[in-house]
Amino acid sequence: MTFQDEVCCLFSFRIPTSVSFEIISPFCDISVLYRTNASTLSCPYKLSIVCVVSLTLCPNLPLSSDYDLSYLSLRTSIGLWTAFLCLVLVATDASSLVCYITRFTEEAFAALICIIFIYEALEKLVHLGELYPINMNNKLDNLTFYICQCSPPVNATPEIQQVWNRSGVAPESISWTQLDVDECSSMRGEFVGPACGHHGPYIPDVLFWSVILFFTTFFLSSFLKQFKTKLYFPTKVRSTISDFAVFLTIMIMVLVDYLVGIPSPKLNVPDRFQPTSENRGWLISPLGTNPWWTMLAAAIPALLCTILIFMDQQITAVIINRKEHKLKKGCGYHLDLLVVSVMLGVCSIMGLPWFVAATVLSISHVNSLKLESECSAPGEQPKFLGIREQRVTSFMIFILMGCSVFMTSVLKFIPMPVLYGVFLYMGVSSLKGIQFFDRIKLFCMPAKHQPDLIYLRYVPLWKVHVFTLVQLTCLVLLWVIKASAAAVVFPMMVLALVFIRKLLDLCFTNRELSWLDDLMPESKKKKEDDKKKKAKEEAQRILEVEEGIAHPYDGPGILKTLKVRLVVGDNSDAVYQCPLYLEEVTAHSP
Amino acid sequence: MTFQDEVCCLFSFRIPTSVSFEIISPFCDISVLYRTNASTLSCPYKLSIVCVVSLTLCPNLPLSSDYDLSYLSLRTSIGLWTAFLCLVLVATDASSLVCYITRFTEEAFAALICIIFIYEALEKLVHLGELYPINMNNKLDNLTFYICQCSPPVNATPEIQQVWNRSGVAPESISWTQLDVDECSSMRGEFVGPACGHHGPYIPDVLFWSVILFFTTFFLSSFLKQFKTKLYFPTKVRSTISDFAVFLTIMIMVLVDYLVGIPSPKLNVPDRFQPTSENRGWLISPLGTNPWWTMLAAAIPALLCTILIFMDQQITAVIINRKEHKLKKGCGYHLDLLVVSVMLGVCSIMGLPWFVAATVLSISHVNSLKLESECSAPGEQPKFLGIREQRVTSFMIFILMGCSVFMTSVLKFIPMPVLYGVFLYMGVSSLKGIQFFDRIKLFCMPAKHQPDLIYLRYVPLWKVHVFTLVQLTCLVLLWVIKASAAAVVFPMMVLALVFIRKLLDLCFTNRELSWLDDLMPESKKKKEDDKKKKAKEEAQRILEVEEGIAHPYDGPGILKTLKVRLVVGDNSDAVYQCPLYLEEVTAHSP
Repeated sequence: MTFQDEVCCLFSFRIPTSVSFEIISPFCDISVLYRTNASTLSCPYKLSIVCVVSLTLCPNLPLSSDYDLSYLSLRTSIGLWTAFLCLVLVATDASSLVCYITRFTEEAFAALICIIFIYEALEKLVHLGELYPINMNNKLDNLTFYICQCSPPVNATPEIQQVWNRSGVAPESISWTQLDVDECSSMRGEFVGPACGHHGPYIPDVLFWSVILFFTTFFLSSFLKQFKTKLYFPTKVRSTISDFAVFLTIMIMVLVDYLVGIPSPKLNVPDRFQPTSENRGWLISPLGTNPWWTMLAAAIPALLCTILIFMDQQITAVIINRKEHKLKKGCGYHLDLLVVSVMLGVCSIMGLPWFVAATVLSISHVNSLKLESECSAPGEQPKFLGIREQRVTSFMIFILMGCSVFMTSVLKFIPMPVLYGVFLYMGVSSLKGIQFFDRIKLFCMPAKHQPDLIYLRYVPLWKVHVFTLVQLTCLVLLWVIKASAAAVVFPMMVLALVFIRKLLDLCFTNRELSWLDDLMPESKKKKEDDKKKKAKEEAQRILEVEEGIAHPYDGPGILKTLKVRLVVGDNSDAVYQCPLYLEEVTAHSP
Repeated sequence: MTFQDEVCCLFSFRIPTSVSFEIISPFCDISVLYRTNASTLSCPYKLSIVCVVSLTLCPNLPLSSDYDLSYLSLRTSIGLWTAFLCLVLVATDASSLVCYITRFTEEAFAALICIIFIYEALEKLVHLGELYPINMNNKLDNLTFYICQCSPPVNATPEIQQVWNRSGVAPESISWTQLDVDECSSMRGEFVGPACGHHGPYIPDVLFWSVILFFTTFFLSSFLKQFKTKLYFPTKVRSTISDFAVFLTIMIMVLVDYLVGIPSPKLNVPDRFQPTSENRGWLISPLGTNPWWTMLAAAIPALLCTILIFMDQQITAVIINRKEHKLKKGCGYHLDLLVVSVMLGVCSIMGLPWFVAATVLSISHVNSLKLESECSAPGEQPKFLGIREQRVTSFMIFILMGCSVFMTSVLKFIPMPVLYGVFLYMGVSSLKGIQFFDRIKLFCMPAKHQPDLIYLRYVPLWKVHVFTLVQLTCLVLLWVIKASAAAVVFPMMVLALVFIRKLLDLCFTNRELSWLDDLMPESKKKKEDDKKKKAKEEAQRILEVEEGIAHPYDGPGILKTLKVRLVVGDNSDAVYQCPLYLEEVTAHSP
């Protein structure tokens, strides 16, 4: 099973990583291959969170260009500051603060990451609609007149004149109608004709083909993943199909795309191993052309980055180290953060994307290493036994990722919509394990259909709803802040989650919070609860006689009232009375 | 619920009916509306089976054109003969032969109809690929050169000259490049340019949009139909969504298609109520321009038609009247056949499509009238109580269908791919209730995962497989015959199913056949079986003393061996012996 998991992980990891690279590419101009290779340096978690980091950095970007600063140098100095601050956090034992990261914070953060995955996938698809415009109001009868030709621009602005001069071609000598789309755009020609969209000719079929690829990938990988619990075929075949679900899906979709031949957007793989820009080398100076004070000013954004990277690293580590994963080897909060901070410095100096934890990818790595009992009875749920704790898979993942340098000729056959589909699948499938979403579902579930969740046994439904609503508000706030101009304060908001959770102590009793917001696994809790209940019932039969009061009674026996204490569990001390008639039997002995 | 069902039925019935009209339209040239209106005449089942009939008639078609016969007249005389033969069948009590139609025949036939539904839906989609050709090898950079213009034909054959003369336009005066697609085709122009397919310009987007509509319709209607058993929302909301699943899906898809605006193929609705061809009136003469002997010769194809219509009518009736449907009102095999035969005559004379039973539509009508217990416990399966037996729904279906004459302005917004999607959904959802498919699934199911099916308890697995294989072979044979040149013998093959089932008596014991091929409902059987088993266990405790043999024994009592018969169920008569020591107790009485 180990090798299967490795390859499986490789692909379920490798692809979103590339996609997250795509997301940050406008911010850190560096070639995809270079980045891929960079991430082969061994690390426990990976890069997807970069999208969050880059999104928070995004509003800084216009700043640096407004003030005519060199972005890469500024980024390097921020990165070095961040690395230093993280080292300080390691030295000051800050990781011990993770005890304040409860399920509340964890799940709000994990949900945010999942939603980012889903949102980005859908947004990318919508973005394809702009890249590949279609003519929605085609008249099929007029297809014989449809053309979109290149023509000289109506008014040649000085800017356009400059372009022409630079290219060294006289605009009169250009035969405009003979230019293809690329040439026409570079010569600043205009597209004229009924088959033209806003910025160029309408592109037939590509958009809808992309939509088909996207959703087919999503549904096919979900279907294949579920194949494990189907009734058909022997267990071996089923688990193999399920393990390789994403890999199989990508293979199938690449083949289908290749056979159909529609020029769908493909993974953009550079063919040489080099920095993307010719203006930069392999090493970036933290000062560069910037004035000296930027080195000091960088400490302020670095503080925000540190909060984000620390929170992301710790939350991911807490999720991975959950009790329900039954990990046997110890956790390494400090060591992980040390590795991250050192790598942050190295990545900053080399102008690589930052090295941070990847929540979704780490969770799916753990999931793919789950060891489950072989179930034999039909319909029986396999029992979770533990995680295959080793370093082989991570190591092999990155070795194989490094080898992807030699696979560029294959990788460029992968259509982007397929990757977006995998992206969506990973986001949606990660939502499944989050209790927060189970509680959201409760909103549209009538009481009689509610599943037997442990917290519903002890916490009134309206209180559960209030708790969910608070969490939902936090999530919406996080999202709004992330998307708005105030994105710089996003890391503060993540930190604020911990304090908001602390405030909840005022509205909820400790007992309720222990049910709603506990790291103990659900199933274990339920079992313990059942055990407790049984013990309670047992205890009810044990009566403790406290004292007996004799009553005046003129008969052969004695009438007494016994005070009886009912021992029920731990804290109930109700005292009951019962009348008791005692008959003396000594008189009739032979 | 009644009104809901009506509307629901209307739409789940109406649409496939239109589609089946489309299928037969090449064979019986008559306007869609005219046909729709014709089917408003009340009948228990409807027209979908026409596709089978027309497919068997299809090979006759070239015959009639080869010999220069009038197709419509020939069809009328065949129809009249068929009506007569059916009347003879009614008069001779032929419907009593339905007792030979067992589950074997029923399911092979119903499966065939379902597969025809699925096949036709997919074939129609593939056919769209021919109607709307796409350029699969587009080079996006060359889009500025892509055009497909009309040009004069390279060599003007005499045939083309004739077309030009008839249109009264001199070919020299035509400005070919100004012609649109339709004009170009009618003037026999040629399409020239890189954006041209084989028979005209490539049509962008329409094909892929149709594919998206098709599959979205299929999955959305399946999802909404299953909504009944979901945990969300109150029962009322869920069952409403489930009842209107197909209707809602069509509404949503029409809206989406309208908003996107791609010119997908729409339902072709004529705007006037008239026969399609000007060469025919409302009444068709059975002789027409044909020679007199065709009237007599028509009896031979009529015989085949009669077999098919009789089998179709009876099998559908048997399926509807199954015990598991718990129908309270009596069946009307003879009356149904009488109505069919009378309507056959009327339809033939008026040149309408024939009036026959529609297996899939009848089954879905029955399904939508099912009365189920309101279940309250989560996960509890609703109990089937019976069918709402009435005539209101059928009546309203046809009234509303008739009203569709006034809805032509709305109907023409319905995209054809949506209808094909509904077609596919109906075919696939009808497969679910067929035991034959459950048995096919057993082939790829390991023994330990097999569901607890009643026949698996009593019949060895390999025998079940043999039975399934025989049925599968019959189905494949039926399909091959239907599709091949030998389609005329298809009705004979349907009849042959009954005899093949009879032959199975040689390979299987009666007991095995009663489990595999019985009309008794599955659940009831299982319950009875469980009851029997319990009785058996009870019976094992009852021992019947047969005889006792005294042994020589010198003690105070008597030693006897009793012969004991163990009464276990019905046929086991094993006799056991047990030694018995009898002590006399009379001696010590006080």
